[in-house]
Amino acid sequence: MGKLLIVGSMAFDAIETPFGKTGRILGGAGTFIGLAASQFKLDAAIVSVVGDDFPQSYMDILKNKNIDLTGVEVVKGGKTFFWEGKYHNDLNSRDTLVTELNTLADFNPIVPADFTSADVVMLGNLHPNIQMSVINQMEERPKLIILDTMNFWMNSTWDELMAVIKKIDVITINDEEARQMTSEYSLVKAAAKIQEMGPKYVVIKKGEHGALLFHKENIFFAPALPLEEVFDPTGAGDTFAGGFAGYLTESGNISFESMKNAIIHGSNLASFCVERFGTERMINLQKHEVDSRLVQFRDLTQFNIELT
Amino acid sequence: MGKLLIVGSMAFDAIETPFGKTGRILGGAGTFIGLAASQFKLDAAIVSVVGDDFPQSYMDILKNKNIDLTGVEVVKGGKTFFWEGKYHNDLNSRDTLVTELNTLADFNPIVPADFTSADVVMLGNLHPNIQMSVINQMEERPKLIILDTMNFWMNSTWDELMAVIKKIDVITINDEEARQMTSEYSLVKAAAKIQEMGPKYVVIKKGEHGALLFHKENIFFAPALPLEEVFDPTGAGDTFAGGFAGYLTESGNISFESMKNAIIHGSNLASFCVERFGTERMINLQKHEVDSRLVQFRDLTQFNIELT
Repeated sequence: MGKLLIVGSMAFDAIETPFGKTGRILGGAGTFIGLAASQFKLDAAIVSVVGDDFPQSYMDILKNKNIDLTGVEVVKGGKTFFWEGKYHNDLNSRDTLVTELNTLADFNPIVPADFTSADVVMLGNLHPNIQMSVINQMEERPKLIILDTMNFWMNSTWDELMAVIKKIDVITINDEEARQMTSEYSLVKAAAKIQEMGPKYVVIKKGEHGALLFHKENIFFAPALPLEEVFDPTGAGDTFAGGFAGYLTESGNISFESMKNAIIHGSNLASFCVERFGTERMINLQKHEVDSRLVQFRDLTQFNIELT
Repeated sequence: MGKLLIVGSMAFDAIETPFGKTGRILGGAGTFIGLAASQFKLDAAIVSVVGDDFPQSYMDILKNKNIDLTGVEVVKGGKTFFWEGKYHNDLNSRDTLVTELNTLADFNPIVPADFTSADVVMLGNLHPNIQMSVINQMEERPKLIILDTMNFWMNSTWDELMAVIKKIDVITINDEEARQMTSEYSLVKAAAKIQEMGPKYVVIKKGEHGALLFHKENIFFAPALPLEEVFDPTGAGDTFAGGFAGYLTESGNISFESMKNAIIHGSNLASFCVERFGTERMINLQKHEVDSRLVQFRDLTQFNIELT
């Protein structure tokens, strides 16, 4: 089986949406990526850091999905990364109310020996130096390195970000961030400029408006599944990335055609994530639900025009 | 060949975008719908009204596309509908600077005898009473009646709009208008409510984010083609509607499966419309260009996942 190495935060989230409010629940990019990737046949490990306030029951959720957690450092006396946010009524924007980096502030990732030869590396949204450190620990160049980032790192660590994205294959980024990164409004132009910065594949996430995959002259698009109700968007982008990385690890095929399928799988899994608060829906997600929603994706997008 | 009856404005437009500014050029919903529909094998007629300031050369553009203009009233001494608008930098929003209804204010549509038995009727965005008058002139119930409308008519003529949409099959409307019409943020819920108002098929246009087709439990989605540059969005929605109506008229098949193809054809044609000011690109559009861009739509959206 293919090996997937995931680097990303494990966290407490507190979320308010128009539909309700949670206490401190399980969150973090690494968590969402891992849960999504666990839908595929692969060996996955998460590299992360938590405090000793992080409950064993949360660890067990991931362990029960066969995710290797030997790379998760538990800092004695430390506190786990905490994020609190409140979504606006349309769920397309949110205010961050609290960010406590805690143990994440001094995170020094250690890749478990078993995973220094991983086939695919998924670098979740973290300081670019942390992402670089993980790449440097790999024994040989992985078949595929995927990196997620956000505007915060563009604003505060531009040079470090540029250094790490030179070393990766796929970047995932949202539409506004792609525009900010390139000063191009057109996503086609933005994606071309980002490819010049290093990554040969650019995935632009547009939230409820779907996701685009760019590679040279090729473009592929997957919509978000139209849902009656989006309950909580937290983790949707990470779930998408986890599905994308998970599919490519399982298939072992990193061609553009295979990435199209990966984009669909990522979008499919993200459509579940938003149906409940936090990780709730992903933890209990069953294979037959995933399969049947893939049929919905087919019906939503596939047409039959004879082309001449 | 199938017959398509188009009702819609023929107009002068003056347009400013970040890329430049036009003088008074050919515009109007009926014009854009007609130009798009003329890409298909069908007999089309436009019912509209202009003043005697409307140049013969503009009439000839449509006549040369084999569009029957006997239903276009030329009001002696009257002035043609004029719209002037300026787009914001992102081209997603615009300010209307001038609207002079002129002859359109007293428009009394007369359907040419040859088209009172049209197979498909495309009611462009106009006062709902004008749309109703056209329906009432049909000798027999057309196979398909499609109606386009906008927030202006919801605000000013709600009862008349409700009366006419009870009599149609397909409504095309943008996302914000669908939300306004139903007080539902979720487009899935909005489309369900609109179906209860009359139209069995609901097409929600999302501009650069594509278009959705709803019918009972079925949903189909077509993206807008990602373009390097959108030059002028004027007429894109009408071009989409013209492609949709034109394809269904040519095919004679009004099933949901056929409407999927119609949505793709509409999106395909709209992708050309926005490449130049006004009607410029549509007037000179060649079949081989249309066909080759359909291949791009296939590559953009079609994937190959084995479904179990």
